[in-house]
Amino acid sequence: MAKYGARIVIPVDLKKKIEEQKYPFHNRWHPDIPAVAEVKENELFRVEMVDCNGGLIQNNDSAEDVKYADLYGGHYLSGPIRVVDKDGIAAKPGDLLGVEICNLGPLPGDEWGYTATFDREKGGSFLTDHFPCATKAIWYIEGIFAYSPHIPGVRFPGLPHPGVIGTAPSMELLNIWNEREKDVAENGLNSFKLCEVLHSRPLAHLPTAKKCLLGKIPKGTPEWEKMAWEAARTTPGRENGGNCDIKNLSTGSKVYLPVVVEGANLSSGDMHFSQGDGEISFCGAIEMNGFLELKCEIIRGGMKEYLTPMGPTPLHVSPVFEIGPVEPRFSEWLVFEGISVDESGRQHFLDATVAYKRAVLNAIDYLSKFGYSKEQMYLLLSCCPCEGRISGIVDSPNALATLAIPTAIFDQDIRPKNGKVPVGPRLLRKPDVLKCTYDGNLPITNNPAASISM
Amino acid sequence: MAKYGARIVIPVDLKKKIEEQKYPFHNRWHPDIPAVAEVKENELFRVEMVDCNGGLIQNNDSAEDVKYADLYGGHYLSGPIRVVDKDGIAAKPGDLLGVEICNLGPLPGDEWGYTATFDREKGGSFLTDHFPCATKAIWYIEGIFAYSPHIPGVRFPGLPHPGVIGTAPSMELLNIWNEREKDVAENGLNSFKLCEVLHSRPLAHLPTAKKCLLGKIPKGTPEWEKMAWEAARTTPGRENGGNCDIKNLSTGSKVYLPVVVEGANLSSGDMHFSQGDGEISFCGAIEMNGFLELKCEIIRGGMKEYLTPMGPTPLHVSPVFEIGPVEPRFSEWLVFEGISVDESGRQHFLDATVAYKRAVLNAIDYLSKFGYSKEQMYLLLSCCPCEGRISGIVDSPNALATLAIPTAIFDQDIRPKNGKVPVGPRLLRKPDVLKCTYDGNLPITNNPAASISM
Amino acid sequence: MAKYGARIVIPVDLKKKIEEQKYPFHNRWHPDIPAVAEVKENELFRVEMVDCNGGLIQNNDSAEDVKYADLYGGHYLSGPIRVVDKDGIAAKPGDLLGVEICNLGPLPGDEWGYTATFDREKGGSFLTDHFPCATKAIWYIEGIFAYSPHIPGVRFPGLPHPGVIGTAPSMELLNIWNEREKDVAENGLNSFKLCEVLHSRPLAHLPTAKKCLLGKIPKGTPEWEKMAWEAARTTPGRENGGNCDIKNLSTGSKVYLPVVVEGANLSSGDMHFSQGDGEISFCGAIEMNGFLELKCEIIRGGMKEYLTPMGPTPLHVSPVFEIGPVEPRFSEWLVFEGISVDESGRQHFLDATVAYKRAVLNAIDYLSKFGYSKEQMYLLLSCCPCEGRISGIVDSPNALATLAIPTAIFDQDIRPKNGKVPVGPRLLRKPDVLKCTYDGNLPITNNPAASISM
Amino acid sequence: MAKYGARIVIPVDLKKKIEEQKYPFHNRWHPDIPAVAEVKENELFRVEMVDCNGGLIQNNDSAEDVKYADLYGGHYLSGPIRVVDKDGIAAKPGDLLGVEICNLGPLPGDEWGYTATFDREKGGSFLTDHFPCATKAIWYIEGIFAYSPHIPGVRFPGLPHPGVIGTAPSMELLNIWNEREKDVAENGLNSFKLCEVLHSRPLAHLPTAKKCLLGKIPKGTPEWEKMAWEAARTTPGRENGGNCDIKNLSTGSKVYLPVVVEGANLSSGDMHFSQGDGEISFCGAIEMNGFLELKCEIIRGGMKEYLTPMGPTPLHVSPVFEIGPVEPRFSEWLVFEGISVDESGRQHFLDATVAYKRAVLNAIDYLSKFGYSKEQMYLLLSCCPCEGRISGIVDSPNALATLAIPTAIFDQDIRPKNGKVPVGPRLLRKPDVLKCTYDGNLPITNNPAASISM
Repeated sequence: MAKYGARIVIPVDLKKKIEEQKYPFHNRWHPDIPAVAEVKENELFRVEMVDCNGGLIQNNDSAEDVKYADLYGGHYLSGPIRVVDKDGIAAKPGDLLGVEICNLGPLPGDEWGYTATFDREKGGSFLTDHFPCATKAIWYIEGIFAYSPHIPGVRFPGLPHPGVIGTAPSMELLNIWNEREKDVAENGLNSFKLCEVLHSRPLAHLPTAKKCLLGKIPKGTPEWEKMAWEAARTTPGRENGGNCDIKNLSTGSKVYLPVVVEGANLSSGDMHFSQGDGEISFCGAIEMNGFLELKCEIIRGGMKEYLTPMGPTPLHVSPVFEIGPVEPRFSEWLVFEGISVDESGRQHFLDATVAYKRAVLNAIDYLSKFGYSKEQMYLLLSCCPCEGRISGIVDSPNALATLAIPTAIFDQDIRPKNGKVPVGPRLLRKPDVLKCTYDGNLPITNNPAASISM
Repeated sequence: MAKYGARIVIPVDLKKKIEEQKYPFHNRWHPDIPAVAEVKENELFRVEMVDCNGGLIQNNDSAEDVKYADLYGGHYLSGPIRVVDKDGIAAKPGDLLGVEICNLGPLPGDEWGYTATFDREKGGSFLTDHFPCATKAIWYIEGIFAYSPHIPGVRFPGLPHPGVIGTAPSMELLNIWNEREKDVAENGLNSFKLCEVLHSRPLAHLPTAKKCLLGKIPKGTPEWEKMAWEAARTTPGRENGGNCDIKNLSTGSKVYLPVVVEGANLSSGDMHFSQGDGEISFCGAIEMNGFLELKCEIIRGGMKEYLTPMGPTPLHVSPVFEIGPVEPRFSEWLVFEGISVDESGRQHFLDATVAYKRAVLNAIDYLSKFGYSKEQMYLLLSCCPCEGRISGIVDSPNALATLAIPTAIFDQDIRPKNGKVPVGPRLLRKPDVLKCTYDGNLPITNNPAASISM
Repeated sequence: MAKYGARIVIPVDLKKKIEEQKYPFHNRWHPDIPAVAEVKENELFRVEMVDCNGGLIQNNDSAEDVKYADLYGGHYLSGPIRVVDKDGIAAKPGDLLGVEICNLGPLPGDEWGYTATFDREKGGSFLTDHFPCATKAIWYIEGIFAYSPHIPGVRFPGLPHPGVIGTAPSMELLNIWNEREKDVAENGLNSFKLCEVLHSRPLAHLPTAKKCLLGKIPKGTPEWEKMAWEAARTTPGRENGGNCDIKNLSTGSKVYLPVVVEGANLSSGDMHFSQGDGEISFCGAIEMNGFLELKCEIIRGGMKEYLTPMGPTPLHVSPVFEIGPVEPRFSEWLVFEGISVDESGRQHFLDATVAYKRAVLNAIDYLSKFGYSKEQMYLLLSCCPCEGRISGIVDSPNALATLAIPTAIFDQDIRPKNGKVPVGPRLLRKPDVLKCTYDGNLPITNNPAASISM
Repeated sequence: MAKYGARIVIPVDLKKKIEEQKYPFHNRWHPDIPAVAEVKENELFRVEMVDCNGGLIQNNDSAEDVKYADLYGGHYLSGPIRVVDKDGIAAKPGDLLGVEICNLGPLPGDEWGYTATFDREKGGSFLTDHFPCATKAIWYIEGIFAYSPHIPGVRFPGLPHPGVIGTAPSMELLNIWNEREKDVAENGLNSFKLCEVLHSRPLAHLPTAKKCLLGKIPKGTPEWEKMAWEAARTTPGRENGGNCDIKNLSTGSKVYLPVVVEGANLSSGDMHFSQGDGEISFCGAIEMNGFLELKCEIIRGGMKEYLTPMGPTPLHVSPVFEIGPVEPRFSEWLVFEGISVDESGRQHFLDATVAYKRAVLNAIDYLSKFGYSKEQMYLLLSCCPCEGRISGIVDSPNALATLAIPTAIFDQDIRPKNGKVPVGPRLLRKPDVLKCTYDGNLPITNNPAASISM
């Protein structure tokens, strides 16, 4: 008789505080963060995780908690987990780690989540110049479905996924990260990409000991101090996977990650019940506490065999994944086009970021005609299963991006129609909760940065 | 007894030259190009079109014809077609024109196409710094499938679509286009986006009388001369639709276009049998001669009702479309990630274009391990039904883009596997046809522009 | 430079009569019907076909033509086509013939079709005891879509397929067919399946020279006379494929047929634009003139390798097929259950036919609440892309069948809803055309056969 | 702050015996079985259930437990649950109960299941004359996937569903059931359907007090005694839903059930992790302990509004359901045809049951060429996500059924191929566990019943 079911290797107790959990979290990437658990190749195991803000954001009608959140602490990761083969030999640098996501979801008894935009000063979001203040929508999870009291008339099946999943970087990889990010953060002003400097969002999040957690490394020790100022922040996705925020990395997917430290040291966190491509509102998925049930495979020597060198360095590291067989099925989509001409009318050269921004703004404007506020639609497009495509990237000077929205998530017909007044009954159901005051000292219209913003 | 079938409003005779066709083509956008045909709302009608290069590219094993092609002539559009309602009253500025694509395909008896990259000097492509010379692959169309003698071991169902479909611009809209594109073309060097100037591709294609065709306006007349220097080039997609190159604008789709001139003046061309998101090799779909069977609906006053203002100008113009119900079904996808760090290791700030470029390069590198040349895979990813997504656009400094490839288009298993040597039998089948010599005077490795290129 | 496009091996001229076509039709299965064309393995070729009634049914508002149709002539098949390999060696008995359907559709310029029920005396239909008289609906084909003036408010994409596709039977196979069908036709009354005898539809259609066409065999010759009384009727699907009426045998499918005569002798006909599982109204697809573009593969010795012996005879003949990659995509389905208790309340033992009948009757009843007549819905369910499943076949005494209808084919919401009156505006749009008078002398309620019918 | 998560209304404790559970099971349908719980309309609630055999079948390598199982006890149902609206007013006869399946799965910590065929004497299965003895395969559930040590080389995502879900019958409905089933059980021999009598499976399962459980009604009391001999067995699906065994009644589905007793009295059980259409091996899904999370809606007066009268009785009772948005996605299917000619060569008249039987037999024969035993494939086709269709039901005398198998569930390519020997490596991996000896006294080949079986 065989064993079955997933072995729980990292449990989370929601009644305890972040720092009281049995398996200490880490919120940085560093090769020397010690593994807290070990799993065998092909073993099914379960990891539990807290939401990206570690319980800071409450299930209520106020965005105050979001307003005063910051990015120093975020992404409380469960792990690292050391992976060994059936003979107990650890994954080695150069191997490829296949990680199959057999199951995942919210933690039992805790079936809710939230979508938020940070305040402009606190990290902002993709459209921070249009939506500078903190907002929040609560979502309740009913099995595969989610609905929000703050965005009535919408309900959809989720496509849960870990926002963050990655292996530990080697010191070599970590140094590359820190150098290139320091470059953009420090030299933005004098560099060839002036536009970015003027943009009102931080250019990069560099290592800092502020709110740094390094798992089993005791805070305040010399070791912690040294590592804290080296360890990479978790905000961006990088070559080790990390905060890739890929909405289709869902049930049944298998991601192939590079192994660059002994044991692979797999970590995960930032569980999402659902997310739209781009995660545009930044804290933008349906963020939740959750679990993963995983199986690992070690492909010996697979990095060189399968992955691509990352650039001037010969490291083969860019992750690859297979999409799983179970995704919500939608047959009807309404699609919005955006080209790389910004809101001020300025032409950008094949800039997919600007094009996608315009597609999103067009969609928000369109949907707000159906009885919603723009803030509601911004949050919705950030977390519903919408698809963001790079449709054309060669027809200079215009990049063309599209945003496709499954029409079935609305309880009204949102398609253009002859003789139909689009403003529907949702008008009366606009909740006040999302209203907030922007505390920044520059309104968007007078901000020179905004006018030429990305 | 009702009428049925599509009325042919614009036929093409492939035995005749471009300039001998009964309905003269136009290859520019201008409000004063006269309509060549008229259709009624809800009438099913058929338009035939030549391929984007107007027959210049031959069904053979040489890329010489591509090498000497240029962009001045391209996009021979069929139309404009004036649209009237059932009472004969024309569509009016402010209306929304719904255009349903009921059917489309190659012209009967002409079931082939090609995918190509232009030479760097002739317009280049998305990866022109990596693939600077002209290449070409011929595709044969077998009903819904295409295969290429130049890329053996691959066969896939197409998702045909018009690369170009759009309504005529008003003079107001045309002026906006010309001004903003002139700005990026002329001021690139001194502007805040220096990087673009150094890039080796043209920044914009401005109006020119060179090879200009304006339909019924006789070439060389004063009217033609004036219009030719005003008329917008067709290369980029814009607010009127145009060269949007959206791979899912296929059978059964319905696109909603702004009406800004009396009669709407709908034009189309640049038929594609199949295209990947991004159309990365630029001449990058399976380009073919083809037909469209369309039905139009006029939504009176719909522009303001449904579309979004384009920016500083209050014109409501950004197209919206509904995806059709018939698309090839793939269940297994291999997905490549790319982040906004370029090949030189330089960090870019949330630049989705760079991220997508890296995802594409990663995919080309990976697939070339299975017995293909990189040139073959570049052409393949440009025209096969792959999906390019903006997965993360907020996690500064990294934008994260993904490229998803349906694995079923290959006749071998391309997934990572333990104990499997990926280099397959295709190695011996590499055709020589794609080899070409780059005539430019700067090899890529010594080109300062390339090293900091987009 | 390679050849491309499909070679037309059997054209049809719709301006000519059935008997005037260049390639004579056959409407029976017999090993000695001579091939009229030859194709090579892997060659793409085109076959054109007339509709199942050979042009008898007109594009008009009357069901008179259906009323007086009979089944003796039907299924005018194009072929047989002899298949040889690249060296010119014919397919041989024991081989397996893979036939890929690369493309198919209506004949250009003839984009319409019809769905009909025959009169009870003329062949009836699945629900002939409920719908004893002839009815007809005309469908107009707009590219991938069909709509009917006789069933307003409905429009759907088709899934075209050949109702009939098969290889010629050997004399051995033909004899088996004739014997077993004669047995059920003649001995029904005294056999153990009394119920069938009482049913009002013919039990089998035995060979007859009436309206028999045998291709190149001249009518009235002794050879014709002999063959005509041997040749199998085309009504049922059998081990050679034949009138299988499988709705998913559509574009991109590949069917594997047994080869039991030299050259395989492939024939096809009875083109359908769309059909629901079961083709319940008998003349029940959207019947049309059409074309097929096919490619054949010969798997030498494949019958024994891949197919299953048919029963007491060791012939390996049951066809197998692969579904193609392009099918209309529907995300929402309303499903009706039926169990094997008939309309009189009688319990049948695990009888899937009765269960499916009840599911269909339930669906017709339900849909008729939305403003349609039952006749309209009967015709619709016969030809729209609905799915008929054998859901449970073991839970004695009830077989359970389901009928799933894609809700998107209606222009109103047909789902059950609180507070909604289901009878919609379609009520006023019921056309009179489908009304007809049943000429039979027994109304259904007084017919003892009907009360215990199937 | 709103409540979230599902309220557990009926828990199951797997450490306790069937008769020790807090909420007593019932395994019969009767109007007077008292409700054990109450839920409000729109409330999300959770019900837990034991597997159909109540823990009798063990997770091991022997089919002995299946061999001695019987059908008297089976289907331990959780419930009945009384449904009231938000004002506390119960659902009333004539209402329609919409039940949405928001979530479902195995019980945590118990992620395994089994597929079995009963011995011929103990209830048999669809192909009992071919597979007369008890067999069993164990499945281990890894999140969304299942695999079996007894059928190596196969792994697939499940489509979990309740085999049984239904409302309590009224006395009127119960009487109808008992009468019609008694008729077929008792009068089979003399009736017009002689064939059924000779079949070796029981014709119907009539009420019996043997192993009868009636929830809160104490066993042995006069009330229990009376009810036990009236209460309907749960084997067949009927007009109240019941053991419908519909594989697509999965996550996100919504089933509309008739309300014929006050409170609706909803019960469920017989959870399946996965099932093929038909559930052919009878104990034929992946049977498991499991949970449902449900939401109910009361449509007042909806039975008459939406459902269909059941026959001579004017009760509107046939269930209808909507399919959910999340189903495993397969793009490639291999399809087997079957016609209504049985294994002895006898022709049946439009008998979909015989046709499906042949399709299944053809598929088993085909798949067994790839290194499997026929018993393995029989069990696999019973529980994997294969589709059984009634493709043609009018082309007399042949009904045509198809069985479609998603090819991706195998780890080898099972499609017909030129030059490929289909017998694969699985040959050496055949486990002995499924071998068993049939204890019946008549081998199939000498059994006159079998030769003319169904």
